[in-house]
Amino acid sequence: MPASLTRDSDQTLTEQLVQRFADRIEQHLLPPGTRLPSVRECAKAHQVSPYTVVAAYDQLQARGLVEARSQRGFFVRQATVRKPRDTQAPSRIFEPSRPIDATALIRGMFHQPGHRAMPALGTLPPEWLDAPMLGAALRKATQAEKLGSLSLHYGDPLGDESLRQALSHKLSEWRLKAPPSQIITTVGAANALDIVSRTLLQAGDAVLVDEPGWAAEFARLQLMGARILPVPRGPDGPDLAVLAQLAAAHKPKLYVTVSVLHNPTSAMLSPGHAHQVLRLAEQHNFHILEDDIYAMLAPPHATRLSVLDDLQRTISVGSFSKVLAPGWRVGYIAAPAALVDRLVHTKLLSTLTTPPVLERAVAQCLEQGTLRRHVERVVQQLDAARSRCAQLVRQHGCRFVSEPQGLFGWVEVGVDTERLTHPMLDAGWLIAPGTLFHANRQPTTLMRINVATAQDASFWKALQQARKGLR
Amino acid sequence: MPASLTRDSDQTLTEQLVQRFADRIEQHLLPPGTRLPSVRECAKAHQVSPYTVVAAYDQLQARGLVEARSQRGFFVRQATVRKPRDTQAPSRIFEPSRPIDATALIRGMFHQPGHRAMPALGTLPPEWLDAPMLGAALRKATQAEKLGSLSLHYGDPLGDESLRQALSHKLSEWRLKAPPSQIITTVGAANALDIVSRTLLQAGDAVLVDEPGWAAEFARLQLMGARILPVPRGPDGPDLAVLAQLAAAHKPKLYVTVSVLHNPTSAMLSPGHAHQVLRLAEQHNFHILEDDIYAMLAPPHATRLSVLDDLQRTISVGSFSKVLAPGWRVGYIAAPAALVDRLVHTKLLSTLTTPPVLERAVAQCLEQGTLRRHVERVVQQLDAARSRCAQLVRQHGCRFVSEPQGLFGWVEVGVDTERLTHPMLDAGWLIAPGTLFHANRQPTTLMRINVATAQDASFWKALQQARKGLR
Repeated sequence: MPASLTRDSDQTLTEQLVQRFADRIEQHLLPPGTRLPSVRECAKAHQVSPYTVVAAYDQLQARGLVEARSQRGFFVRQATVRKPRDTQAPSRIFEPSRPIDATALIRGMFHQPGHRAMPALGTLPPEWLDAPMLGAALRKATQAEKLGSLSLHYGDPLGDESLRQALSHKLSEWRLKAPPSQIITTVGAANALDIVSRTLLQAGDAVLVDEPGWAAEFARLQLMGARILPVPRGPDGPDLAVLAQLAAAHKPKLYVTVSVLHNPTSAMLSPGHAHQVLRLAEQHNFHILEDDIYAMLAPPHATRLSVLDDLQRTISVGSFSKVLAPGWRVGYIAAPAALVDRLVHTKLLSTLTTPPVLERAVAQCLEQGTLRRHVERVVQQLDAARSRCAQLVRQHGCRFVSEPQGLFGWVEVGVDTERLTHPMLDAGWLIAPGTLFHANRQPTTLMRINVATAQDASFWKALQQARKGLR
Repeated sequence: MPASLTRDSDQTLTEQLVQRFADRIEQHLLPPGTRLPSVRECAKAHQVSPYTVVAAYDQLQARGLVEARSQRGFFVRQATVRKPRDTQAPSRIFEPSRPIDATALIRGMFHQPGHRAMPALGTLPPEWLDAPMLGAALRKATQAEKLGSLSLHYGDPLGDESLRQALSHKLSEWRLKAPPSQIITTVGAANALDIVSRTLLQAGDAVLVDEPGWAAEFARLQLMGARILPVPRGPDGPDLAVLAQLAAAHKPKLYVTVSVLHNPTSAMLSPGHAHQVLRLAEQHNFHILEDDIYAMLAPPHATRLSVLDDLQRTISVGSFSKVLAPGWRVGYIAAPAALVDRLVHTKLLSTLTTPPVLERAVAQCLEQGTLRRHVERVVQQLDAARSRCAQLVRQHGCRFVSEPQGLFGWVEVGVDTERLTHPMLDAGWLIAPGTLFHANRQPTTLMRINVATAQDASFWKALQQARKGLR
């Protein structure tokens, strides 16, 4: 990707500019709703005249890729507009009049602008993972007559029994008591969250979420027509006063939250907050869906709602995508006994069963202790990366909002991070602006970085430059 | 499983009877809504006094497993009741006041009463499939450095590219023109149907379905709060007059149908009907979801809506679960270009991506021609099984409603097939009564058999006996 436009081209400067924005929109590097740079800003960044920029924006509008909003500028158009039927709009409820395309960041990852590690990434870099370990486990799981028994049947609706047993044991290390009969395997955590939400919610139901929080979760709830109630998430957990007020006013059915290594802030739920959240859940009779996908990167004694609650009204969800094999899509639900049957019903309608072959291979990694040793190495590597990252953040005039932990850091950069998207893409870097983590997409000067993939000083230099250009 | 109750037991006859029904209800062999035998019928079948049966039914009711309906008898209770918000109830619309547990038949398969092939099964018997072929394909797909590239990343949101290319080629044999960019891989056909339905429907939307049809499809639509409009399915296709009338009255968004080897009747859509269905779809502006999971068992020239329509308003769904590897859960969607982006969005929210390892192995089977040779063998085997089955059907006083084709036969047995469930389970056989294929669960004297697993004369003898007992 060229860093700058060129006059030595068959294309005019306008055409080049149109092409550049069109490509990025198509590749989801600029998600719907993203504001294009102002004409002046864009002209300055590319050293072209304002007329060139105006002509390019007009062409993008004519092609239906962007839309003008009076007094506000040009925005990437939303291809698909879905509105929930329920038209009541109480305060604090996210109104998707400008629905976010929350899968944009995920999709952007498949069209990385350069062939280098992207700080926007939500996973560990592939080279940190252990393909030979996976190969050995898969060979063992599929040797001789085993392959037939794992391939020629649909498999148990709950999921592979070896994996559920190994998981039950693993969860007990976190003091979560879940017998294999209360564990349901899924196609990664995404599928687990989807199954639980679809089982407990109907269109029009209110649901509490953390804000900031993971945009794909907002989109998932939006897809099923739920009413999203964002609860500000502080360093110790949700704002309890807001939680209580929303629960009383809207009778939510569910609270979806990340207690351990919260995405994007990396904060950990405090025991005191956990206790209060459970009291509110009991008082207002809602379920809690605890998304625990960063569990293996955290200390085993981290506070979990599902542990305090003993899986009574809390459902815990996790996966092996972050530390073991993103492509195997193995996740799980640990659920209250009373919910298992309903969750299996939804699973059967969603994917029927899940592939026993891959689940058995994951069970191998758990049983043989290879996963444990691998995770220990990853955590050490991550600690080292985090230290280097903290230094780079300081050196380049940014700061962490709070002490980073686990995979992510939540960084204050001093300028609107959505505006930073454009010059950073020009420099070949995809970032994760804070807007993506807000249900109502409010502008913010925060962004999420992945400490494992934000090690390159040239990223931080480019960021410094881009920030300067926008001040 | 004992065929009869015994007096040589620590348990009383009442306790034994309670236990037997409780076990079957828990194992989903008796789905919610199933009527228990009348007291007289049950007393006669087990040679106990009516008082014993009344006592047993009372205990089952006390345990919350069954409920009495005045003047109608005892019914297995529905554990979960979900009602759509939309309360309008136009005629012909399926009102789930007594929601079916449509996953019951699927679940029943995992608790087969005997260790023998069950005529209720929806798949080929495992011994007809080819584990060594799968092993070779999986080894090839995961050899050396390939495993890492297929495991350490999420994979392409559309699905593994090799598989999409091989599928594009395969579909062209059926004259379906779908470039790889219009193919999306899924976790089996269930997930494919789910993704399409969730993309095109919102709670409260009306959707047309075949009746009889596959119960899991009704349940899936019900889960998302859609209004189900059953269209009677004849030997040539849907009843066009009813289809036109429902479309005009209810403005459905979608028609979900099986054109090729319809489940359960095994009927094939005629070209004339196909043309008229497409005209109605255009006139009333609804999409068509063509569930093509039996494609490989049918002649290549079979009539398909998606082929006539050239993937304009038709979405085709298929899988490799029936003929290749049920446990691998590899399916696909072939979609109009204009819908691909929205479908991928739903896929990302549903499972994120699908496992590239298994998809690459399926691609191997397609590319190497091993799947083709395997399917040829299966089709020959199925033809032979169907002939033997037709003989058994005739010999035991039953008849096929129409000439069976593919995997299923739709059999007239002369008595209410739901009532047959009990004596057949007593004899150790799980059947698929016609009620399961009706959205409103009307009583019927039809049942579905799998010609591959209905080869055992003792099944037909037991059926003959059971029918006699109920006359």
